[in-house]
Order: sequence, then C-alpha cells, then structure tokens
Amino acid sequence: MASSLIGRQLVLSLQKNMWLGAAGCRYVSKAAPQSRAECEYDGPSMKTSVPGPRSQELTKQLGEIQNVGAINFFCNYEESRGNYLVDVDGNRMLDIYTQISSIPIGYNHPALLKLMTNPNNLSTLVNRPALGILPPENFPDKITESLISVAPSGMTRVQTMACGSCSNENAYKAMFIWYRNKERGHNTPSEEDLNTCMINKSPGCPDLSILSFMGGFHGRTMGTLATTHSKAIHKLDVPSFDWPIAPFPTLQYPLEEFTRENEQEEARCLEEVEDLIVKWRQKGRPVAGIVIEPIQAEGGDNHASPNFFKGLRNIASKHGCAFHVDEVQTGGGTTGKFWAHEHWGMDDPADIVSFSKKLLTGGYYHKYELQADKPYRIFNTWMGDPTKNLILAEVLNVIRREQLLEEVNRSGKVLLNGLYDLQARYPGVLSRARGQGTFCAIDVCSDETRNSILLKARDKGILLGGCGDRSIRFRPALVFKEHHVHMFLNIFNDVLAQIK
Amino acid sequence: MASSLIGRQLVLSLQKNMWLGAAGCRYVSKAAPQSRAECEYDGPSMKTSVPGPRSQELTKQLGEIQNVGAINFFCNYEESRGNYLVDVDGNRMLDIYTQISSIPIGYNHPALLKLMTNPNNLSTLVNRPALGILPPENFPDKITESLISVAPSGMTRVQTMACGSCSNENAYKAMFIWYRNKERGHNTPSEEDLNTCMINKSPGCPDLSILSFMGGFHGRTMGTLATTHSKAIHKLDVPSFDWPIAPFPTLQYPLEEFTRENEQEEARCLEEVEDLIVKWRQKGRPVAGIVIEPIQAEGGDNHASPNFFKGLRNIASKHGCAFHVDEVQTGGGTTGKFWAHEHWGMDDPADIVSFSKKLLTGGYYHKYELQADKPYRIFNTWMGDPTKNLILAEVLNVIRREQLLEEVNRSGKVLLNGLYDLQARYPGVLSRARGQGTFCAIDVCSDETRNSILLKARDKGILLGGCGDRSIRFRPALVFKEHHVHMFLNIFNDVLAQIK
Repeated sequence: MASSLIGRQLVLSLQKNMWLGAAGCRYVSKAAPQSRAECEYDGPSMKTSVPGPRSQELTKQLGEIQNVGAINFFCNYEESRGNYLVDVDGNRMLDIYTQISSIPIGYNHPALLKLMTNPNNLSTLVNRPALGILPPENFPDKITESLISVAPSGMTRVQTMACGSCSNENAYKAMFIWYRNKERGHNTPSEEDLNTCMINKSPGCPDLSILSFMGGFHGRTMGTLATTHSKAIHKLDVPSFDWPIAPFPTLQYPLEEFTRENEQEEARCLEEVEDLIVKWRQKGRPVAGIVIEPIQAEGGDNHASPNFFKGLRNIASKHGCAFHVDEVQTGGGTTGKFWAHEHWGMDDPADIVSFSKKLLTGGYYHKYELQADKPYRIFNTWMGDPTKNLILAEVLNVIRREQLLEEVNRSGKVLLNGLYDLQARYPGVLSRARGQGTFCAIDVCSDETRNSILLKARDKGILLGGCGDRSIRFRPALVFKEHHVHMFLNIFNDVLAQIK
Repeated sequence: MASSLIGRQLVLSLQKNMWLGAAGCRYVSKAAPQSRAECEYDGPSMKTSVPGPRSQELTKQLGEIQNVGAINFFCNYEESRGNYLVDVDGNRMLDIYTQISSIPIGYNHPALLKLMTNPNNLSTLVNRPALGILPPENFPDKITESLISVAPSGMTRVQTMACGSCSNENAYKAMFIWYRNKERGHNTPSEEDLNTCMINKSPGCPDLSILSFMGGFHGRTMGTLATTHSKAIHKLDVPSFDWPIAPFPTLQYPLEEFTRENEQEEARCLEEVEDLIVKWRQKGRPVAGIVIEPIQAEGGDNHASPNFFKGLRNIASKHGCAFHVDEVQTGGGTTGKFWAHEHWGMDDPADIVSFSKKLLTGGYYHKYELQADKPYRIFNTWMGDPTKNLILAEVLNVIRREQLLEEVNRSGKVLLNGLYDLQARYPGVLSRARGQGTFCAIDVCSDETRNSILLKARDKGILLGGCGDRSIRFRPALVFKEHHVHMFLNIFNDVLAQIK
C-alpha cells in the first residue's frame, strides 16, 4: 500500500492552493511526470464545504426555474483546468467523475481553446445546418477524420445524433427496419403496412422487441427506457413495451480468482438469453436486436468476460437478431482501448455500436446491412452538430499526440492496484474492486456509507460518482495521470480512515 | 398582382450576382429598405443546376459513410449571408426553408459572429457540462435572459434538452408522472410500482396514453413517434403504443370565407376527442395528456381556429388531461407572435409548451404542477447545451433590437397576398394559400407538380420545402423582408408560368 502512495507532506503541500498559470507547469510527482502539454493545478484546494454559499445562492435562484434536486454545485468553467474542476466558491476539486464521464481530455485543453479561436471555425459555430439535407462542405472530411478514423472493426458507416438516448433510439429503429425487411424478403412495404403504421397498429408498427439486460442503462426516451433497468426512479410511471429482459452475469471479483464460478454464471445467463428469444418469438414479439453495454456502467460497473460477449454474439447470429453494443459510457478510450469491445478480440464484434459522452457527439456505427433502405427513415432536423464533430476531430488528435490510451493503461493499473490495497486495508467497508483502464469501481458496505464517503471525499477535493446500489465509479478524463492517481489514493485513504 | 411585384428589370439586375461585402450594403427595393444591420447579397445567383458537380462529388463521398438519399446539396456556410444560402458550386439561393425552419436570424448574423469571437465565451464552447448536476455560474442568468424572457403566459419554469424529439419525450414523461401522482393522491410509489417498473410492467410502467392528432408531427423517437402521424415513412416498421388518434380539423381556406363550415368541422373533431378520451379510459389506457401543434407543420400546414384550441383546452381540463402545445416548428416568431399559441388570446393556453429549431436549444416550459416531484426523473447527461443558450440570448436581443416580429408581420402580409394573387392567376395549379406571419403554405394540384415546382424554383435560386401530400411550405428566417418577398414572388411567378 505505502509504496503506491506519495508522502503525507506532499499531499498537504498539494492542498496549499498553489495555482499554476498557463505559462508555468511543474512536476508534482516524480513517479509520473506531467507532460509539457498539460498546464493545470497542482492539487485540490478547498475553501468551503461543498456546496458553498455562492453555489447555494445560485441553486436557490435556479430553483425558481427548474427542479434543482440533482444539482451538486455550480462551476467556474473558466478557471477549471485539466483534471481540476473549480466551483463558484473557489473550491478546486480533482475531478474523477468528469460530467458523468463526458469530458475526454480535461477542462480547457489548450488545443481546444486554440481550435475555438480559429476564425475558420466561426461559421460552424453560428450556422447549425440540417445535416441530413444540407451538410457543410467539410462534413465528409470531418467525419472521416474523426469518427471514421476510430470506427470499430468491420464498420465503415456512421450516423451522428444529438445525444446518447437519440443515438440508441435510432439504432433500435435501424434494427427494426432491417428485421422487417428481412422478414419480408424485400424492401417494399405492403399497402396494409403503410396504412396500419399511420395508426400505430401491426403489421405497419410491428410487435417486435429488443432484448436487454437487467442492470443495463441505454437512455431515458421511451424506446431506450424500455431497455433500461438500472434504477426504478428512471422508469417509474412511464409506459413501456413488453420486451424480454435477460439476467446480466453477476461475477465475482477479482475475475481471475473466480474463473470457474464466473464461467458457470455466464453460461447460465447465455442460456436464459436463448430461452427468452425463443419465448418471445413464440408469443409473437420476435427479438429484432440485442442491446448490451460492454461494462454495465450506470447499473453498477458490472463486467463480463470476452467469452460471454462472444457467446452472445453467436446467439444473436444464430437467431437472426442484430447485435448492438452500447458504448455511450465505455467508449472513447477510458477502458484503455478506444472501444471497450476491443477487449473481446473479435473481428466482427457487433452490427451496431452507439456512442455519445466523451465522443462529444452522439451517434452510431453500423454495418452496411443495417442502413435504412430509404432516406427520411433515420432522420431529424439536426442529426448531430458539426461543432461537436470539429471538437471531436481535435480531441482525437490530442489523444494520439499525447498518447493518452497508454496513459490510461498506466494510470488504470496504478488505480486498480491502489483500490485492491485499500479494500485489503478496509475490508469491512470496501469490496469488489474492479476495472479496465481507468474505468474502475469499488463497492461500499452500504448505500448510506457510500454516499457519506462521496460527500466526505468531495469536501476534501475529490469529485466522484456513485453507480448501482452501493458502488463508487471512477470516471476520470484520459489526461488522468499516475500522479493524479496517487493524489486521489492518499486523500481517499484519509476519508476511509474517518469511516468507522 | 402587378402592384405587389417589383419590375422585371429590377429582378434581372438582382440576379447579376452583385456581391456586397461586409462593409457595404445597399438598398435593393424602395418599397422595403434594408436595415443597416443587414449585410447580405442583393439576389440569388445561379452558376449550375442544383446539385452542381461539386455537390454531387461530395454526396458520392458521403455516400460511403451514410445514406445520402435526402441530401439536397452541400453548402458553403462561410459565404452564406442573411437570407442567402450559398452552395459549394457557387450557387446562391434565397432560402425560404432555412434548414427545416431552424435558422432564426439568417446566416452569419454579425451579432452572432461577434458573440462567438468574444473570449469570455470560449470556455462555454470547450467545456460542455452535465447541466443537471454541475451547471456553470451564469446558467440561471442566461436562462432567465433567454428562455424565461419569452416564457408563454402562465409559465415560469423551463427545462432545456438537446433536440425536439427529446423535448417532447421528456414533456410526455412529465405528463405521465404528474398523472400517476394525481391518481395516487400522493407522490410515494408503492413497492409494487417500484418492482414492476423495473421489468416494464404495470402498475410501475402504467398503461397511460397521449392523445395526438392525425397529421401531427412530434418527433421520431419511439414515444414521440407514437404521436406522429404525418407520413408513413416516419413510422413504418417501428413498434408503437396503442394510443388514441383524433382527427385534426380539415378547414377550407381562406378561413374567413368559410366560417360556418369550419366551425362545424372543428366541433366534429372536438366531439371525437372527447369520445376518444372516454373510450381509452374505459379500455384501461387513460389519456394523461393531449399533444397538438398550433399549426400542423410537417403534416401539411393545417390550421385551426383559436376557438378550436380553446375548446380543446377545456376538454383537457374537464377530463384531467395535461395539455401540451408543441411549438417546435411554430415557435420563435415566425407566425408574427413569438409563440403561435399567442394568437389564441388565452391567459392559460397550456400546461406544457415544447420548443426547438429556431430556439436553437430544445426544451419545454411547464406549469409548476408538471414539474417532476423528484430529481433524476427528468434527466440525462447533457440536458441541453449552454453554447446554444448563449446564442439564443443574443438571437433574442437581435429580434428585439431589429424589431423582427414587426418585420415578420409586414413580410407575412405581403407574402400571403402575393400567394393569393398567384393562386388566382394559376387556379389549376395552386390553391388553399394560407398562413400566419411568414409561416405560409400553398397547395399544388399534385405531388408530382409540387416536386417539379420545388426543383425548378431551386434552379432559379429559390429554396423551398414541401410538407403534407402536396403543399409547399414557406419558412423564411425572421430577417426575411418585404423586398425578399417581392423577389421570391417574381421568380416563383416565372416558375409557375413554365408549368403547363
């Protein structure tokens, strides 16, 4: 344990609010030197408990306009840098939650500031096109340079969308359209199809289904919400579809110590998937597609083995269902590979891969067969936002230039080992440390203790998020380096020491 | 007719491609002088037929990545100005479709260019927050300055969202939550509610419905799509809900000439609405909310009278259904009032008003009762985009400063009168001219002729859109002035003269 933590004195000095201007950067950890490109603060700095008085005042003001029950605090994004989020009370926190895992390369990265001051990009910012009908000249190039340059194996086609839910909604629609055309044997709808669909009735609006997994999260619009099963508060009171829900494997961690038990659990779940597909076909609601996250994120950071996903992919093929991998939270490099599904080592991992968050734009990749046969079937006014494509292209440049995937792998190892150490040290409090890259999590003995740890850590300058019933999820940006890990582990250790 | 059109010679001179640089503006119509703030081109200028060779080349390139069946042409947004959209082949078109009605104050408005070069706004562009948990300091002020400053009567609360579909999806969810709490008599779900909702079953996922209208368009995600009934291609092959669909009045135009007939038609539709509400309650799928557009836009620019909407509002109240007015296409000033529902003259026009397009951000206003009782019920990662709020605030400043609503009313009158003239002149081709402000439409004798007119007009430098089965919809920006109307009418007249 001790070896992975920097000295108490250094941590204390880090908390002395020493601000580094844009010009001067210094090393804060000999173990993991900062790159020259990174200009950020040298540690957290807390002036008030969080939310401080100014945040409380603004929360009250916003409360006149919106429900503010979920507001943590208000931020000073101008002053935030790299891994550090600054709030309106002058508190500076090491951000290991990054706007629900949606900030790829930290706050105010110099490359992005430069990009946004380039006058050539001005027109993109003020003229938002209807991309599906009147794209800008540079649209094919920007898409090629950004999304296509990181396309999953076997996929050359991509459709952008405005957010994660819309990405999955449209991916589901693509799977339904593909499935119905397969059933028809051709692409020409009947008169009955055309007439009945206008009044929401079968066969035009067919009784097809998407198979999802208990604990999964795929969005909150009504189609995606029917496949989300992580927390009741997301689903309560909203009408839904009669679609099959399979168990996601409940594995024991560390995975390598429970190989046999976990294999059995995964085999049980795969069997259940196959049973459900048969059952739903029999009841007249065939499964058009299977949707799954490579790691169930919102639902509690539940992992499964490459073999499980390979098995699932085979079951999908066998039964003629499309296979949709939802990488909205796992995509963008945080697991140590650009896409989490790359860890499965498959040439043909999926028919559809959806994304959002760290990719800055929503959207989905798909195989050629999954492209809607006619225009205006997958369509809306904006279909994404070229401003976000522009930023994404530069983010990808930074990821390559600063070799951030290697960074994630380095930091991730230190983080996971640190979590193993901590759970050994606090066995009554922590358990089930797990992760891939910096996409890590650990369980806490109870929901109550978990929440208390999150608040205490925040008041010490560490911003974390929960997931599942009693997990803490770690979602740093890709610029989270070894020295940040050490800083976190030290402070987290202090917090845990205060928990009885 | 003649009096409303400027001379042929002037039109010809307008087409001589005279480019006005940012510094120099000149008057092109004595009848309607341009304001000094507006620096744009003095007319359309066509170099190729559309799409030109460069557009075709880019379409082929994009075709390797996406379905390009809906692509009209590729644009040069840098060179576009005000009401003129320039394409990649150097063609300059008077844009009366404005990216499916989503450009409020024209292309590259100087005020927006200035806004986006203000270094104070840089941080907003590169740090997209999770607005529901960590808003920026200026968020309450920006929302107050923008959306709240134009809030519909009786509404003080607003929730931003990323796009139109998401806005309506979340508005529906808000209505369902409100309705279920009303049924319960309190806000505390039962154990059964919490358990059943996780597996998509009633009572947790209740059998509630939204009543919508035939011909309506409310979006393409699965919840909103169940209320969209404008074209089969939008709905085909996508599973849907068993929700009631009422007839929208089919009125005769001009409205003032068919008062009695239209009143009868509206009474018939209101009666049907009430019957459907009773019927759906009896079959165990109570109507939680009614959703309607003030003018059915995508569905063919179908109007109804203020009395119809008042009657509908009363029926909603009587039966305990929420009343949701979808202003995604009608909102933002284009009907001559900021919200189309203002034409109804009601103090309490709706429980929910949704918006997107010209408002640049999606979202919905709602009455206090329609606010979800707990956080995280109406929620997603981004919940809008502060960059769009920033631009919207400035757009509203421009609308006020340049008195654009007055402009819309002036131009709208000239446009509608011009359309009346044209349909008198071409009675075999045009009929049913109608509109509010510049939100106008006219019917063409057939789908085929309509499409031919749209293409011919485009090749003469006028960009228009279709809607419904055989309508042309006019959707200029708010900076569309009288002289633009005259220019359009002249060229459109030429096009019509070529139609046999």
